Amino acid sequence: MKLTILGCHSATPRWDANPTSQVLEVKGHLFLIDCAEGTQVQLRRFKVKFSRLKHVFISHLHGDHFFGLVGLISTFRLLGREADLHIYGPKGIKEAVLLQLKLGKSYTNYGLYFHELENKEPQVIFEDDKVSVTTIPLDHRVYTNGFLFTEKPGERKLNIDAARDRGVDLSYYNKIKQGFDAPDANGNLVPNTEITFNPDPPKSYAYCSDTAYFPEIIPQIKNATALYHEATFLELHYDLAEKTKHSTAKEAAAIAKKANVDQLILGHYSGRYPNLDAFKNEAQEIFENVILAQDGKVIDI
Amino acid sequence: MKLTILGCHSATPRWDANPTSQVLEVKGHLFLIDCAEGTQVQLRRFKVKFSRLKHVFISHLHGDHFFGLVGLISTFRLLGREADLHIYGPKGIKEAVLLQLKLGKSYTNYGLYFHELENKEPQVIFEDDKVSVTTIPLDHRVYTNGFLFTEKPGERKLNIDAARDRGVDLSYYNKIKQGFDAPDANGNLVPNTEITFNPDPPKSYAYCSDTAYFPEIIPQIKNATALYHEATFLELHYDLAEKTKHSTAKEAAAIAKKANVDQLILGHYSGRYPNLDAFKNEAQEIFENVILAQDGKVIDI
Repeated sequence: MKLTILGCHSATPRWDANPTSQVLEVKGHLFLIDCAEGTQVQLRRFKVKFSRLKHVFISHLHGDHFFGLVGLISTFRLLGREADLHIYGPKGIKEAVLLQLKLGKSYTNYGLYFHELENKEPQVIFEDDKVSVTTIPLDHRVYTNGFLFTEKPGERKLNIDAARDRGVDLSYYNKIKQGFDAPDANGNLVPNTEITFNPDPPKSYAYCSDTAYFPEIIPQIKNATALYHEATFLELHYDLAEKTKHSTAKEAAAIAKKANVDQLILGHYSGRYPNLDAFKNEAQEIFENVILAQDGKVIDI
Repeated sequence: MKLTILGCHSATPRWDANPTSQVLEVKGHLFLIDCAEGTQVQLRRFKVKFSRLKHVFISHLHGDHFFGLVGLISTFRLLGREADLHIYGPKGIKEAVLLQLKLGKSYTNYGLYFHELENKEPQVIFEDDKVSVTTIPLDHRVYTNGFLFTEKPGERKLNIDAARDRGVDLSYYNKIKQGFDAPDANGNLVPNTEITFNPDPPKSYAYCSDTAYFPEIIPQIKNATALYHEATFLELHYDLAEKTKHSTAKEAAAIAKKANVDQLILGHYSGRYPNLDAFKNEAQEIFENVILAQDGKVIDI
């Protein structure tokens, strides 16, 4: 998995700081997660190929997470896109986008599919043979979902030396990777585990923004490879976090620790803090493996 | 009048080229004209004070002219704006903005007034004692207005030396600037013209984007101090201009010449042209005083 941070600051776009959007590359997919104003420019700046984006996941309908969506959809149209585009987001997102396209008589010439969400329980909203995406209901001022991206176990890896030594014909290799046994040179069946390695363990990425401290999510994100958790405030401004239903860096770290994730990525910083290191320091008092999201940063998960 | 180009390219935002938005400073007002995605960032980049913007004029509801509006309105709210904001634009603009604010439960805490336009004849949409704004109905694929910003004649300028020589008491100075005669040291009435200079001639700025070649506008913009006229294409792509109801640089220049304006500003360039000088060269075959709009350029009118 490769995560590209297009923007990770809260609220108002600035010359040097973009609000939330990120691209997750997983098993051949490029998933766009949130789409603040300016996302299409950030996609170009960081050389993300527009045509590879087919699924957009919108956490909630605050402007700093979705005001760039209609512009992106329009730009796709102007560029002659043909591939379908699927939008997953809170109920109302379809009306907001289509109204604006209608006012400009700018209908898309590609398939635009809205998957509106209103369920308050986790639900699988995308699934193929390699990956699934499940909502993570969060606690914010408006209906909000995080998203859990989970790889499915891959094929077993062929131990090509072992297979050759045993004289297994290469016509069996595909079946072997799927877990089947295969005959050796003498026609005796070789157990699959003797000619394969275990596949890489499936990875998972949990995206949780925006949300108050909400331990109800812990069972769902347990043992995730990486957790992006918003940290709009430092503990210094705990009162503001509580009032606006955001989290502090310390709270994000507490979630990471309790969920036993491998890696915590912080973001959605309030503009009031000149130095982001304070977020890392505060979180690391509780949870060691902390990365600060920054616009343009690419994170291997 | 001072015009700041925030963006002047057509269609899709790019890292180095913003779609349409500009700020006109006239008689103490800062008028925002069109508001493409990214406008709030451009306003900050070019240090336009948010609180001075009180009137926004939207020509039409294509994304490259208005997708930045809702974000700007939201940002004003987040920054604690208190002053009223007036939006002038095609019918539908109110619903589009309010729907998005409603979805995010993000109502403004300042007065937000929409002045929706649907008239196909020119109409005065703003007026005070110093300036008026009149729509310029244009010919585009959707309902579109340009805007004519016209200064009203200012006060006469006091010829302070003449007034002193005649012994006019300074308590009359304000009245003199308003055009009244005043008594000299001997109580004889001095004609106003003998102790004042003419005011600066009122200026006018005509903003015309987007539009096909549309000579019907000429009577309305006759003798304007400056005309911004879209030039999406060069004559080379006349067929595209006609098909999409845009103009070529040559057509923009023809309008400028026939309307006898002082200065022509070109903009709304298609992204297909690597070198914008071709726009200037093409226009100057017909009309000499041509300026190419460029993001960040400040033009004295």
